[in-house]
Amino acid sequence: MKFCIVGWCGHTQYIVDGLKKLPDFELAGVASGEEGRSGQYILDRCKARGIPGEPKLYDNWITMLDEVKPEVISADGPYHLHGLECLEAAKRGIHVFSEKPISLKLDELEAIGKACAETGAKIVSMVGIRYDAAFWTAHKLVREGRIGKIKVVHTQKSYKLGTRPEFYKSRELYGGTIPWVGSHAIDWILWFTGSEFESVTAFHDSNDNFGYGSMEIAGECLFRLKNGVIATASIDYLRPSTAPTHGDDRIRCAGTKGVIEVMGGKVHLITADGDEYIEPVNPPQSLFEDFIGGLRGLNPLPATTEETIALTKACLLARESADKHATEYFK
Amino acid sequence: MKFCIVGWCGHTQYIVDGLKKLPDFELAGVASGEEGRSGQYILDRCKARGIPGEPKLYDNWITMLDEVKPEVISADGPYHLHGLECLEAAKRGIHVFSEKPISLKLDELEAIGKACAETGAKIVSMVGIRYDAAFWTAHKLVREGRIGKIKVVHTQKSYKLGTRPEFYKSRELYGGTIPWVGSHAIDWILWFTGSEFESVTAFHDSNDNFGYGSMEIAGECLFRLKNGVIATASIDYLRPSTAPTHGDDRIRCAGTKGVIEVMGGKVHLITADGDEYIEPVNPPQSLFEDFIGGLRGLNPLPATTEETIALTKACLLARESADKHATEYFK
Repeated sequence: MKFCIVGWCGHTQYIVDGLKKLPDFELAGVASGEEGRSGQYILDRCKARGIPGEPKLYDNWITMLDEVKPEVISADGPYHLHGLECLEAAKRGIHVFSEKPISLKLDELEAIGKACAETGAKIVSMVGIRYDAAFWTAHKLVREGRIGKIKVVHTQKSYKLGTRPEFYKSRELYGGTIPWVGSHAIDWILWFTGSEFESVTAFHDSNDNFGYGSMEIAGECLFRLKNGVIATASIDYLRPSTAPTHGDDRIRCAGTKGVIEVMGGKVHLITADGDEYIEPVNPPQSLFEDFIGGLRGLNPLPATTEETIALTKACLLARESADKHATEYFK
Repeated sequence: MKFCIVGWCGHTQYIVDGLKKLPDFELAGVASGEEGRSGQYILDRCKARGIPGEPKLYDNWITMLDEVKPEVISADGPYHLHGLECLEAAKRGIHVFSEKPISLKLDELEAIGKACAETGAKIVSMVGIRYDAAFWTAHKLVREGRIGKIKVVHTQKSYKLGTRPEFYKSRELYGGTIPWVGSHAIDWILWFTGSEFESVTAFHDSNDNFGYGSMEIAGECLFRLKNGVIATASIDYLRPSTAPTHGDDRIRCAGTKGVIEVMGGKVHLITADGDEYIEPVNPPQSLFEDFIGGLRGLNPLPATTEETIALTKACLLARESADKHATEYFK
């Protein structure tokens, strides 16, 4: 199975770590996603991480797709290029493991969905935290019916701001805090409820953002799902640097038979049977292994391409709602 | 200072406990708020709690207001009569310590506000949990600037359903879960941010409500405040009976200098100075003492009448938004 890397601005370390576990995989080519930037830094990083093989370095990533004809690529930015990378791969029937979110524009996202439907290309993105042991375990308990039918969900992504690259100051290059930080929180809503979205109302705020241009420092989203679940997502960069972890990731689902919550890496379950903390259990495989296994038919894909598209659309409509101060509806 | 009790369907125990601490107070009359129900049960309860004096029992509470001419009454339902009780008292310049919410109808609320403005009657309601040590302490820290400028707030009210009276099944008599359970969560938003509301978008759901008629089992509200703060409130009756406390009351405020949170009666503060739990400190006086002290000019009122009206309006507009699936704006 031939594999290529396009850019390494984000998640690619997960992939190269995964590659080492899949010896029948060949890293055949690497290229920067950026015009005028050599992909040599990617080759260097692969070498430093002990990835076997002699991948070819390409100046132009589209040429690489056409010459190498990989089965799978990693699309890893810069952020504003995820969409183009996914689109060009999808048109060629190449599967994509993409950094989040897969596109920053609704029309481009639609084109990606259409290309995937035509060629059968699969795209997975934004579902990394599903593989965190606490989230994985809580989701399993919900699927087993432990809290009955979910009625309301609240999710939270709170990050330390730290020092971010210059491009975070630009909406065009960065895409916005709801899609970037919030995509996980929105993914958990989709994943835990197992429903499609009906509407979203959101606000975000780029005031008091410590000099980061148009970057939103915080936001809140309110979703209604087609199965009637009501869900909120709280998103911010306001976690102080002294906090013990980079992110404060949370979900709380209240259902007809109980309440489950992930907070601080712990899983708290209250049902008629009692009030308990459940030991988090890791998923059997990593996200990347599940993705490759899914392509090979060995296990279900971590998320279907339709889910990936729907999730990205939810992120972009939430951003649009916040920009316009108006509710957006999913068709 | 003459005092009367109108109905005892809810919070009146706080008042009678307060009365014992105010020896210059005279409980002059009691009456049921309900037509055809004697107020004898109120007299009996006062006696059982050792309230001094010989209050007169009235068949008709409006006659009582006119004959006794009390300075203050407790308006305590049934729920759908709070509004009438507040209105008739306000028209007569009688101050009201009201069970939440002060009215279930926007037009009635407007009339109450008008009457208060004309006669100078003061109404306090729905602010009881401000006097919980953890909430009181967190609010004090926010006012001292410990978390800088608040950007986002999330609040939660989760109650055990237990067994509720028959009238909870009726919207007309019960008023709805957003005003009844949610009023506290909405009050905290108002109190912590110190801002007026700009808009609210909300959903609530009376499906899967364990046979409670039109009673909503859960809801979520999204507020934008005039000072730019974005806030959500999660409201439900889904707390399992095995949980250690009746309610799971929470607030989380993320600001430019830190994050503060009340959960499980604890106050968690993270700022540049560190990550710590702050020992909750009780307020100097009870809510009822503060209300009476406020009327006597000894301390600020727990909330101004304008705040009480604005808060009730927020509850009713949130309910209206949820009924209509449309954003409501505050004028």
